Amino acid sequence: MSKIKRIGVLTGGGDCPGLNAVIRAVVKSALNLYGMEVIGIEDGYEGLVYPGKTRALGFDQVRGILPKGGTILGSSNRANPFAMPVEENGKLVAKDFSARVPERMEELGIEALVVIGGDGTLKIAKELKDKYGIKVVGVPKTIDNDLSATDLTFGFDSAVRTATWAIDLLHSTAESHHRVMLIEVMGRDAGWIALHSGMASGVEAILIPEMPYLIEKLVKKIEWRESQGRKFSIVVVAEGARPVGGEMSVLKKPHLPWELPRFGGAAQRVADEIEKLTEKETRVTVLGHLQRGGSPTPFDRNLGSRFGVSAVDLISQGKFGTMVCLRGREIKYVSLEEAVAKKKLVDPESEMVKSARALGINFCSEEE
Amino acid sequence: MSKIKRIGVLTGGGDCPGLNAVIRAVVKSALNLYGMEVIGIEDGYEGLVYPGKTRALGFDQVRGILPKGGTILGSSNRANPFAMPVEENGKLVAKDFSARVPERMEELGIEALVVIGGDGTLKIAKELKDKYGIKVVGVPKTIDNDLSATDLTFGFDSAVRTATWAIDLLHSTAESHHRVMLIEVMGRDAGWIALHSGMASGVEAILIPEMPYLIEKLVKKIEWRESQGRKFSIVVVAEGARPVGGEMSVLKKPHLPWELPRFGGAAQRVADEIEKLTEKETRVTVLGHLQRGGSPTPFDRNLGSRFGVSAVDLISQGKFGTMVCLRGREIKYVSLEEAVAKKKLVDPESEMVKSARALGINFCSEEE
Amino acid sequence: MSKIKRIGVLTGGGDCPGLNAVIRAVVKSALNLYGMEVIGIEDGYEGLVYPGKTRALGFDQVRGILPKGGTILGSSNRANPFAMPVEENGKLVAKDFSARVPERMEELGIEALVVIGGDGTLKIAKELKDKYGIKVVGVPKTIDNDLSATDLTFGFDSAVRTATWAIDLLHSTAESHHRVMLIEVMGRDAGWIALHSGMASGVEAILIPEMPYLIEKLVKKIEWRESQGRKFSIVVVAEGARPVGGEMSVLKKPHLPWELPRFGGAAQRVADEIEKLTEKETRVTVLGHLQRGGSPTPFDRNLGSRFGVSAVDLISQGKFGTMVCLRGREIKYVSLEEAVAKKKLVDPESEMVKSARALGINFCSEEE
Amino acid sequence: MSKIKRIGVLTGGGDCPGLNAVIRAVVKSALNLYGMEVIGIEDGYEGLVYPGKTRALGFDQVRGILPKGGTILGSSNRANPFAMPVEENGKLVAKDFSARVPERMEELGIEALVVIGGDGTLKIAKELKDKYGIKVVGVPKTIDNDLSATDLTFGFDSAVRTATWAIDLLHSTAESHHRVMLIEVMGRDAGWIALHSGMASGVEAILIPEMPYLIEKLVKKIEWRESQGRKFSIVVVAEGARPVGGEMSVLKKPHLPWELPRFGGAAQRVADEIEKLTEKETRVTVLGHLQRGGSPTPFDRNLGSRFGVSAVDLISQGKFGTMVCLRGREIKYVSLEEAVAKKKLVDPESEMVKSARALGINFCSEEE
Repeated sequence: MSKIKRIGVLTGGGDCPGLNAVIRAVVKSALNLYGMEVIGIEDGYEGLVYPGKTRALGFDQVRGILPKGGTILGSSNRANPFAMPVEENGKLVAKDFSARVPERMEELGIEALVVIGGDGTLKIAKELKDKYGIKVVGVPKTIDNDLSATDLTFGFDSAVRTATWAIDLLHSTAESHHRVMLIEVMGRDAGWIALHSGMASGVEAILIPEMPYLIEKLVKKIEWRESQGRKFSIVVVAEGARPVGGEMSVLKKPHLPWELPRFGGAAQRVADEIEKLTEKETRVTVLGHLQRGGSPTPFDRNLGSRFGVSAVDLISQGKFGTMVCLRGREIKYVSLEEAVAKKKLVDPESEMVKSARALGINFCSEEE
Repeated sequence: MSKIKRIGVLTGGGDCPGLNAVIRAVVKSALNLYGMEVIGIEDGYEGLVYPGKTRALGFDQVRGILPKGGTILGSSNRANPFAMPVEENGKLVAKDFSARVPERMEELGIEALVVIGGDGTLKIAKELKDKYGIKVVGVPKTIDNDLSATDLTFGFDSAVRTATWAIDLLHSTAESHHRVMLIEVMGRDAGWIALHSGMASGVEAILIPEMPYLIEKLVKKIEWRESQGRKFSIVVVAEGARPVGGEMSVLKKPHLPWELPRFGGAAQRVADEIEKLTEKETRVTVLGHLQRGGSPTPFDRNLGSRFGVSAVDLISQGKFGTMVCLRGREIKYVSLEEAVAKKKLVDPESEMVKSARALGINFCSEEE
Repeated sequence: MSKIKRIGVLTGGGDCPGLNAVIRAVVKSALNLYGMEVIGIEDGYEGLVYPGKTRALGFDQVRGILPKGGTILGSSNRANPFAMPVEENGKLVAKDFSARVPERMEELGIEALVVIGGDGTLKIAKELKDKYGIKVVGVPKTIDNDLSATDLTFGFDSAVRTATWAIDLLHSTAESHHRVMLIEVMGRDAGWIALHSGMASGVEAILIPEMPYLIEKLVKKIEWRESQGRKFSIVVVAEGARPVGGEMSVLKKPHLPWELPRFGGAAQRVADEIEKLTEKETRVTVLGHLQRGGSPTPFDRNLGSRFGVSAVDLISQGKFGTMVCLRGREIKYVSLEEAVAKKKLVDPESEMVKSARALGINFCSEEE
Repeated sequence: MSKIKRIGVLTGGGDCPGLNAVIRAVVKSALNLYGMEVIGIEDGYEGLVYPGKTRALGFDQVRGILPKGGTILGSSNRANPFAMPVEENGKLVAKDFSARVPERMEELGIEALVVIGGDGTLKIAKELKDKYGIKVVGVPKTIDNDLSATDLTFGFDSAVRTATWAIDLLHSTAESHHRVMLIEVMGRDAGWIALHSGMASGVEAILIPEMPYLIEKLVKKIEWRESQGRKFSIVVVAEGARPVGGEMSVLKKPHLPWELPRFGGAAQRVADEIEKLTEKETRVTVLGHLQRGGSPTPFDRNLGSRFGVSAVDLISQGKFGTMVCLRGREIKYVSLEEAVAKKKLVDPESEMVKSARALGINFCSEEE
């Protein structure tokens, strides 16, 4: 194995506190431990297709970025080299530009890639490896914490912090005004943020995708509280929550296969139903992008840093086609195949859910 | 003037960080300085109409509430004794129950009232004074800071803190994704929160009710930035912002005269227009009730405390029909008539607005 | 096994964010799942020796305490029933009052105890079990995170959050003034807080008890940075840090065996040596009790809640003489013997320490 | 008056949140409104004496600095051109290098200076104006808020925020452990930070330089609270607080006239006396540099921005030898002579102090 001299790093998909910690750790450990140069690739895979979207990263370029949210490299939700959106005859279509990736890497002298991203970004990494033999190491990024290959990813702790902070804020308003406050948090497939932030802020009910809800059970809980003299209720709703037998609330259909649907309205739907069934005033707050912002928590900074160091270590060992992960308290790695194989969902029978129930939190599911 | 022995205190209207500081200061200074007893009246004026909605407030009852948001007394938006909502033949109508107020005060032995509230609540206080001779001292509460009789009210600084914090959070996401982020903050008639939080977080544009906007100017600003290589823009939109010649975006008409219309959608309207005129991705965040929550800032805690002490002082001096206020750095008072006489709006020619412009912030108004 | 009807709960030792989450979870799950009554015991074991220091805990008593720091039951560092400090002939001596504990529990009808505390508190619990057959379940509390029987305890994440926040604050001052800033954090035996907060805030060096330091290495690092044009350095010092061959800095000797020595001055000692060896201005900040205060992080609230639910579950199953713990991401339990058997220290060869080094952080130890 | 084409900006003295807001506003408004170039001068007046310590400031250089603490230009406590510390025959002496300032400005083409600093820095500015006719406009910076020429300066609100936050943190620990907690905050001559943060966090007593204390009064307050079942007390101590008839606690004498003495120990002295007079456990926390750190509050960002815009405006009008200031809610200016003429101290007879007393806070002064 010949020694790697120059690597690239890119960030794909949605924002996530801790991305800069990974980038910084990749640069610092590449320089400190192996003398590798690092090239930053801008706006996800776009930087590997279009020219002029790369820059050398040294100590100066990563100074002071550890506590900052976002990614200094930029990101892109649309940048799939296998299906890049192009306008053709006034219509937006998808085209395969993937062959440019190995060419571009050749031009830049990049021998291996650190790809930081979620499900979608890592699947593309795997395709690039399979089709063009590109040497890639993945770093998992999913603010929803729904990747089964890793116990935790950076960003989740920060999102839970922000959501808990917001619910704490709403508590005073709800108490003062005898209202039902609904707060919608991220989580289209998995209810982790809702579960952790709802439990941490002591809400009355948590509605998550894994446990479809019966609106009657929620109304019953609210009315029971009222009968006890507790005239407000706070309910956390994951954006993917849906009634038993119902669908997710989708705001806008995607135009093209690589586009994400824009979900939303899960909390508003619940509010509308409560107002139909009771006379209670309801208020909806949608946290939205706030959850992706802000300075990463110490946990996320450290996990991101450790992932970054570990990714470069894997490259130095020639262990390509892998993704770093956290198992228990240790950093390990899995193959990219395994990495994207399955979603990690909240288990309705888990100790965490049972603990939440013991504390009096309802999930309003059929079995409850 | 015979000595006052027992006073009541109530909070009306929307939530506002600092209400508990006022209540605590009323209780502590009444007990410490004048030996007056204090009765807490629950849920705004409701507690003076319905029975069973009062409680004695001593040192123990106000312990630990200084840093807490909300109001320990509860509030109510509908509790106008002159027009209380009552169901009659299946329809909601307004009835005058105001005569119960002096009766209820008599029963409870309450000789004077401290009324903490905004425009609406203080107007009712004035009516109660005019019609029934009730001895009342007002404390201004308007999170929007739109009362001309006082330089500042508590709650505003906390709302600006929360809004600024949220815009800071969004900054990283906007930068990473090349987006236009629109954030809607409170302010139906006055753009104070938008102006202060937008200037504090260095946004590109601020849209406020006092300065109707031209969408073309906003689009031009965004495109100019893009031409400079700055691919994101953050715009703060007050909920009352409207285009030149246009109306406010009202989500829901009020049912009855005492009900507030539920505004909203000002930012969404701007987003829709931007997406129509450009290809830029936009994202809307509506801060909503988050701005009313949370621990008050030190400034708001202290202003609330000083207002509370001062209100009791006015009662002890027999200066009824007044409202405490801040002038420069001093606590003064005005008559209730003067208190609710006019709104304080952002002056487009003020030094603050000019400073914002000097910093490169656009208001997108006709004159600009 | 006859059904337990009434249990007691106490908190011992130093403050720790998350204590109230445990108390709340004990009360809620005891009432919700098993119909057990809960008696709160005040000021640690004092409440089991002196009369008048207990109170019934129901839903109302634990309302709103989840986000609050401290412990609603109070604590005590001196309350060892086997060696209670008593004044005798003007001198403070230790006396054994442990026999009162079973008597007091009998009087109060308490059949089993949940004891929330650290090393010292849990050792006493074990003695009470061994000598008097008291039915006890322990919940580990150590803000330093130095108990080997559990992967993590509540409070640690909050302490790291506060320490990281403080170091982030100091960064701007250090940068602006070309200084060496030393910040002393908790950790007499174990450097966990120093390691996690120092790594999370990107400091230049971390000095911990497990890795005695050579002051020359620290000075060399500072001077190397200066030669690179970086005129400030930030160093995190655990309170138990000591030079190679040296002792800890002890401020005050303990009076009696049950008293803790008051350590301190580790950072000041480092500062003095730096000023002796260089001309650099140094500044010392001792975080002290700030680390124990504040609202617990969501992680600590949830871990505390899960521990509380689990402790009551163990009581319901008759599994006494045990302590709940976290293993990986699961709640488990160990025997009290095992619980207090050994300290968990930072391993100088661990991946975490190696990652910190890869990021350019020095530990200034002999081997480095 | 010929048009000014290039100005310089420097920051002197201790750190203060909001400095970067001023620098950014100077640069942006100079470029946006007047087409002036701006040169940043590093490390206070050092940059006007030594070569190589200046850099051009454009839009790119001030991007993203608004929410950051510290000063991007660096500062220096020792950089008095009239008395610069120089080593001579192994001893540190003071020398006058002031004649270099006009030379250096000539070389750099700087026609006018914006000097951001406190008392000391502004006095030097006045001397430079008087002796060399340098065109200077001052911006007041005093985190202690003790300049009588301006109602408020930036930094103060942020320092009060941090101090209040810290006292809030300590509250839980104090309550749980029945302790006297003393917290030392900045304020050598003036007790503004102590007064505002102590009142905002509801402490038992506040000790400030303007009102020398009698330790017996403090002990009496603590004991009275204990007799009421309140077993903890929190006391805020300004670093300049002293007993009636006593001196300030000075840790270290200054070496040279331009050096500040390093005060400290005011809180420790109080603690020692309390422990002598009672058996209460006391704990001291010294906030120190934490108060200077952190992101400026929205108020400080906006005040700093307005000061910066206004300073450039004064330059454009040729109003030199002035300092911008806040009067009520308006930005005004005064002459430099007036600017440094006198200290603004807490008036023991002010409404603020009386309000604090009405809330039950003791100042423990002779008159009380």
